[in-house]
Amino acid sequence: MELDQYFNEIIYNVNNEISSYVKGDIKQLYDASIYLLNAGGKRLRPLFLVSIADLLKGDRKRAYKAAAAVEILHNFTLIHDDIMDEDTLRRGIPTVHVKWGIPLAILAGDLLHAKAFQALGDALKGLDAEKIYSGIAEFSNSVIIIAEGQAMDMEFENRENVSEEEYIEMIKKKTAQLFACSAYLGGLVSNANNSELELLKNFGINIGISFQIMDDILGLTADEKELGKPVYSDIREGKKTILVIHALQNANEEQKRIIMEGLGSKDSEKIKKAGDIIKSLSLDYAYSKAKYYLDHAFENLNKIHGEEIAGKALNYLVRFTVERRK
Amino acid sequence: MELDQYFNEIIYNVNNEISSYVKGDIKQLYDASIYLLNAGGKRLRPLFLVSIADLLKGDRKRAYKAAAAVEILHNFTLIHDDIMDEDTLRRGIPTVHVKWGIPLAILAGDLLHAKAFQALGDALKGLDAEKIYSGIAEFSNSVIIIAEGQAMDMEFENRENVSEEEYIEMIKKKTAQLFACSAYLGGLVSNANNSELELLKNFGINIGISFQIMDDILGLTADEKELGKPVYSDIREGKKTILVIHALQNANEEQKRIIMEGLGSKDSEKIKKAGDIIKSLSLDYAYSKAKYYLDHAFENLNKIHGEEIAGKALNYLVRFTVERRK
Repeated sequence: MELDQYFNEIIYNVNNEISSYVKGDIKQLYDASIYLLNAGGKRLRPLFLVSIADLLKGDRKRAYKAAAAVEILHNFTLIHDDIMDEDTLRRGIPTVHVKWGIPLAILAGDLLHAKAFQALGDALKGLDAEKIYSGIAEFSNSVIIIAEGQAMDMEFENRENVSEEEYIEMIKKKTAQLFACSAYLGGLVSNANNSELELLKNFGINIGISFQIMDDILGLTADEKELGKPVYSDIREGKKTILVIHALQNANEEQKRIIMEGLGSKDSEKIKKAGDIIKSLSLDYAYSKAKYYLDHAFENLNKIHGEEIAGKALNYLVRFTVERRK
Repeated sequence: MELDQYFNEIIYNVNNEISSYVKGDIKQLYDASIYLLNAGGKRLRPLFLVSIADLLKGDRKRAYKAAAAVEILHNFTLIHDDIMDEDTLRRGIPTVHVKWGIPLAILAGDLLHAKAFQALGDALKGLDAEKIYSGIAEFSNSVIIIAEGQAMDMEFENRENVSEEEYIEMIKKKTAQLFACSAYLGGLVSNANNSELELLKNFGINIGISFQIMDDILGLTADEKELGKPVYSDIREGKKTILVIHALQNANEEQKRIIMEGLGSKDSEKIKKAGDIIKSLSLDYAYSKAKYYLDHAFENLNKIHGEEIAGKALNYLVRFTVERRK
C-alpha cells in the first residue's frame, strides 16, 4: 500500500536521526536513554510533523530532525512519568527505572530533554533568526506546559471531584500540547505563514485531545498484550480520566461506592468491578467526545491545502488516532 | 565597598529575571520549583556571566536573562542530583524531594530545565541567526555534558579504583562545563569574537575545576552551619573526590583499610575516622591543585582586555572561588 511505504520511509529516517543524537561514551547512561526509544512506539508525532512539512512542501531534512527532537522529548517525559506513576511496564517491557534504578532513569530523562533541544537547534540552523527564536520558544513553552499538565494529573489523583472541564484543560497541557508543537514545527520548517501556523496548532490540540481520550478508553478496553501495559492501571493509580469523571457524575449511590473503592486500590477484584461499571456508564460518551475533537481537527486541517499524498497521509493518521487498538 | 554594590546590582536584577520566569498558575509545582532558588545560593555563575558581559561592554539586559537561564539550569541539576544522591539538606533547608516528594521534585527539575531554555531564547532574541543557534547549541550541549558527568560521578561510587585523571574528566563535565557555558554566554551577548569566546570557555573550565576541588575540600573542612549540609556527606555517599583518590594512593595498608571502611558507610564513627585520615593525607595536595587550575583561569582571563570595574570584579570572583568558606 502506497501510504505504508510513505510512513515507513519517514520512520526509517527519523529513527536514524534519533540514533545519531542519542549516542555517547558513557555506556550505562546512553543504554538507559535509548532503551525506550528502541522499544517501538508508534512515532505518531514524527509522522504528523513530517507529513505536515510535506503538505507544505517543506525541507524533509529539517523535518526529520525536528521530528527526532519531538520524539526524543516525548520519550523523556515517558521515562519521568513512569517513575512518578510507579509504572513498571511500557511497550511490553520493564520501564527504565525498573531496569536501571530511579537515579539513572532521572538522568536518562534529563539527557533526552537536552538532546531534544540539540536536535531542534540543528533542525532550525540556517533559518531566519526570527524562526529559530520562534521554534525554540514554542518548544520550551511546550515542555513547560507539559510539566504543568503532569502536575495537574497528579494533583487530580488526590481529589474526589474533578470536572470534565478541568480534565480537558489537563490533557490539553499534558498530551495535546506536544501534538500542537509537532504540527507547528512541521509548518515552521516549511515556510508556513502565521495563519497556517495557527491552524496547525489548533489541529494539533484537537488531535491531541482525541488521542488522550482514546488512550483513556484503551486503558480499559485494550488487549493487554497489544497495549504493552496492564489494563485498568489508570484505576489502580486513581487517575481521573474522562471515563471516571463521567461515570462518577452518572452513577447511582451503589455504583459510585464501587467506583470509589476501586480507584487507587491494590485489590484487583475491586479494580475490575469499578472498571466494569465505568465502562458501562462512560464508553459511548468517551467515544463521542473523541469523535467531537477529531472533527474539529479535520476542520482545521481541511483549511490547509497542499501536496496530495501528504493530505492522504494526514487523513489516515487522524483516523488512526481514534481507530487504533494500542 | 565599590565591588559589593557592583555585585548586589547584578544579583538583584538576575533574581528579578528568575522570579519572572519561574512563576505560574499550578501552585504546588511552582512552589517546589522556586523554593531552592529562593533559598540563597551564591549566584556565582550569574556574577561571572554578567561581569564578562560588562568586561566586553555587552548588553546588560541580555546578560541578566542569560544569567537567569544558567542559574535556573543549575538549580534544576541540584534538585535532581539531590534525589539521586539521597541528600536531605541543601543551603541549610530540606531538599525539594524531602519537602514535596520525589515525583514533584522530578517535575520541578524538568520545569526549570525548560524554563532555562525559555530564558536563554529570550536573552538571544533579536541577535543574528548564527548567534542564536550557537547559544542554544552551547547550552544544550552543556546539559548533555553535565548529565554525562553526573553519570560518571555515580558510577565512580561503585568502583574502588578511580584515577585522578578520571576524576578531573568527571568534574570537567559535571561542574566546569556550566562555568564554561556561563563565560561563553557572557561573551556571546557582548559580540566577543571567536578567539575571545575560546579564551572564555577555557577560563570557565579552569575556574570550574578549581571550584569543584574547593567544594570537595569544604565538604571535609567547612563549618556545617555555614555549609548548609552535613560535612563528610561525600564520604557517606562513597564519592571519589580528589581528596579520597589522592589519600587512597598515598595511604599505608592500615590507613587504606580505614578509608575504605568509611566510604559509603552509615556509621558516623567510621566516617569520621576515614575523613581525618583523608584530610591529613590530601588537604595540602588538593589546595595546590585548586591553585593550579586557578592560575590557568587567570592566564586565560588576562588575555582579554576591557572595562576596569568588570576586570576587578572578575579578579575578585576568581579569588573567591578558592577562598570561600561555603
